[in-house]
Amino acid sequence: MDPLSLQNPLFATYVIAATLMILKAVSMSWLTVIRMMRVKGGFRSPEDLRKTPLNPHPDPKQLAPDERVERIRRIHLNDLENLPFFLVAGFLFVLTEPSLLLARVLLYGYVVSRFLHFAAYLTAQTHDMRATLWTAGSVILIFMTCWTLLAAIGY
Amino acid sequence: MDPLSLQNPLFATYVIAATLMILKAVSMSWLTVIRMMRVKGGFRSPEDLRKTPLNPHPDPKQLAPDERVERIRRIHLNDLENLPFFLVAGFLFVLTEPSLLLARVLLYGYVVSRFLHFAAYLTAQTHDMRATLWTAGSVILIFMTCWTLLAAIGY
Amino acid sequence: MDPLSLQNPLFATYVIAATLMILKAVSMSWLTVIRMMRVKGGFRSPEDLRKTPLNPHPDPKQLAPDERVERIRRIHLNDLENLPFFLVAGFLFVLTEPSLLLARVLLYGYVVSRFLHFAAYLTAQTHDMRATLWTAGSVILIFMTCWTLLAAIGY
Repeated sequence: MDPLSLQNPLFATYVIAATLMILKAVSMSWLTVIRMMRVKGGFRSPEDLRKTPLNPHPDPKQLAPDERVERIRRIHLNDLENLPFFLVAGFLFVLTEPSLLLARVLLYGYVVSRFLHFAAYLTAQTHDMRATLWTAGSVILIFMTCWTLLAAIGY
Repeated sequence: MDPLSLQNPLFATYVIAATLMILKAVSMSWLTVIRMMRVKGGFRSPEDLRKTPLNPHPDPKQLAPDERVERIRRIHLNDLENLPFFLVAGFLFVLTEPSLLLARVLLYGYVVSRFLHFAAYLTAQTHDMRATLWTAGSVILIFMTCWTLLAAIGY
Repeated sequence: MDPLSLQNPLFATYVIAATLMILKAVSMSWLTVIRMMRVKGGFRSPEDLRKTPLNPHPDPKQLAPDERVERIRRIHLNDLENLPFFLVAGFLFVLTEPSLLLARVLLYGYVVSRFLHFAAYLTAQTHDMRATLWTAGSVILIFMTCWTLLAAIGY
């Protein structure tokens, strides 16, 4: 079966996981926008203090970090550190033709771990909880990557 | 037609858009280098204050943030938040075999939106202008991703 | 030969380089974790000061930046600025069917440049040394991307 056909259940599994993760990452940008508009601050560039329709009453305090915005930025940075590598690793992993069950467990397991990590970070759960959820995803990512590397060097 | 052949106009459209965006992102690194050399500062690591051929007169002020350098770093970070996801989303999108016209409008439209966003950010246009240009690209990215997700789950 | 088969030496070369770079990036996350645990600090979120099994003696100083942790974060950021683009550029590059020798020189050369860059940054070599190693990788990335762009527009 064509490895890159959406009719191929293995590739469809990857595409579903990948698009969900892309939407997750893009949502962090929008959530940052929403929070910046709500707190009317957390801006970063000097020109953001100009009077505009979206910012009718500029104030120098708007350039100070705001924890409600910074929290989303930290979550976003965590996504940048993880998701681009998952997107490529998952793609190469399904090209090694693992069993469909294994692919589903790993790819959807990763997606679930990232959504739970987001929920834990957003609601300021303990560092231990956040670290545990991040670890689950990271271990899946490392497993898929090592599996693919071993397949490529001929094991 | 082979979905990954450069003779395939759909895939060639993606490759042109993708490579332009990669060159755009890499240019931000070089622009940071150029500005750091011009302002002789904006460095980040303690060892950057050592006397070397490229830095013959070290000064502790070189480690202070410099707005001319920081502006490029913010533009770069915005690229990191967007381009890796576009690169994967665009690839999966063309695998769903959309019409060539739609692919060109979305992929090249994204490229144009990012170059305009860069121009607006570099020249310190208003936050509203920058946000509008970013939004155009983000909406294209979300559209392509949702389209691909729906195709993968069988709609 | 199937361009995405691991039996295809060109694609296998890409997969080996790509998985090594993914493992490299993921290792930066783990190295950050290891250093945060060792210095018992370098945390970023207010909730990280809660008393937990992994942090039995919280102290407000734990939220201050710690250079041993920050160094890894800077290396990690440098990876985020480079590796996702390499992963896509390398993939598209091998689809243009370059010679196996050229692909090996460029892809493995990139991998080596990044491992040396890491070693130089970790051990705080001069900015000049770090810049030279980064430049080697960046030039390879730009070359592969321009090569692919030219192939896609028909040269």
